[in-house]
Amino acid sequence: MVLDRWYSLIKNCDTVLASITDEQLQKEIVPNKNRGIYLLGHLIAVHDEMIQILGLGDKFYPELYEPFLKTPDRSVSEIPSPKELRAFWNKQNELLAQKFDSLQPAEWFQKHNSVSAEDFIKEPHRNRLNVLLTRTTHLSYHVGQLMLLR
Amino acid sequence: MVLDRWYSLIKNCDTVLASITDEQLQKEIVPNKNRGIYLLGHLIAVHDEMIQILGLGDKFYPELYEPFLKTPDRSVSEIPSPKELRAFWNKQNELLAQKFDSLQPAEWFQKHNSVSAEDFIKEPHRNRLNVLLTRTTHLSYHVGQLMLLR
Repeated sequence: MVLDRWYSLIKNCDTVLASITDEQLQKEIVPNKNRGIYLLGHLIAVHDEMIQILGLGDKFYPELYEPFLKTPDRSVSEIPSPKELRAFWNKQNELLAQKFDSLQPAEWFQKHNSVSAEDFIKEPHRNRLNVLLTRTTHLSYHVGQLMLLR
Repeated sequence: MVLDRWYSLIKNCDTVLASITDEQLQKEIVPNKNRGIYLLGHLIAVHDEMIQILGLGDKFYPELYEPFLKTPDRSVSEIPSPKELRAFWNKQNELLAQKFDSLQPAEWFQKHNSVSAEDFIKEPHRNRLNVLLTRTTHLSYHVGQLMLLR
């Protein structure tokens, strides 16, 4: 059910991205808030962190951490173009689907890398599935904002 | 985990609502899109429908269906004030928490009212938990929009 939600929202985001131009993506969602391009880079950076937290390998785009996760919009002047970010987004989703497919159901209930073995005994809900769930609601939050650019 | 996510997002929404005035709530999130007040009424109406789908009783505010769910923003001229909607929201969350508390874990995996018994045999993921999950990502989507009013 959580994977279904994840893929549905990735698809929603794809639909929104397909309906807005690179020029629209450069605009702020509302005055003095994040630009569309920042939100797209932010989603890729957060999903990249998720790969590590889930113990599924290294980040695909570690260079996005600084401009899209560590610092707010417009802190870093040199960022990838909308076209490059769109390509990263598509490639990342393809690779994420492969990684998710490789996990057996029980493996989703195993601990993730941001919780200690001791804490996991006391808090078994801090498992991989919960990481995917929080990233799913995070994705939904920003898709709701991106669609306002249309 | 899903209930945790639900309550976290209700809390996020409470924080956003507490940080915006009734006047701000009357504004459109971006020009020609929904007003804040419509999104608040919409969330209450959707959560009210959820009560029925989960088989947990009747809607608390059936009068919100027409102006906030069936029709787009500004279709109905007479709608509750921001103050009234805020009160409905708080009361509904109190009552929803009581209803959710009354369910045993296994009951979340039972079928909901929008799926037939036949279909549920073939698609057992169409259970109550899945309804709560989809409403949780729906809530997150609109909280992301409401926070832009700040």
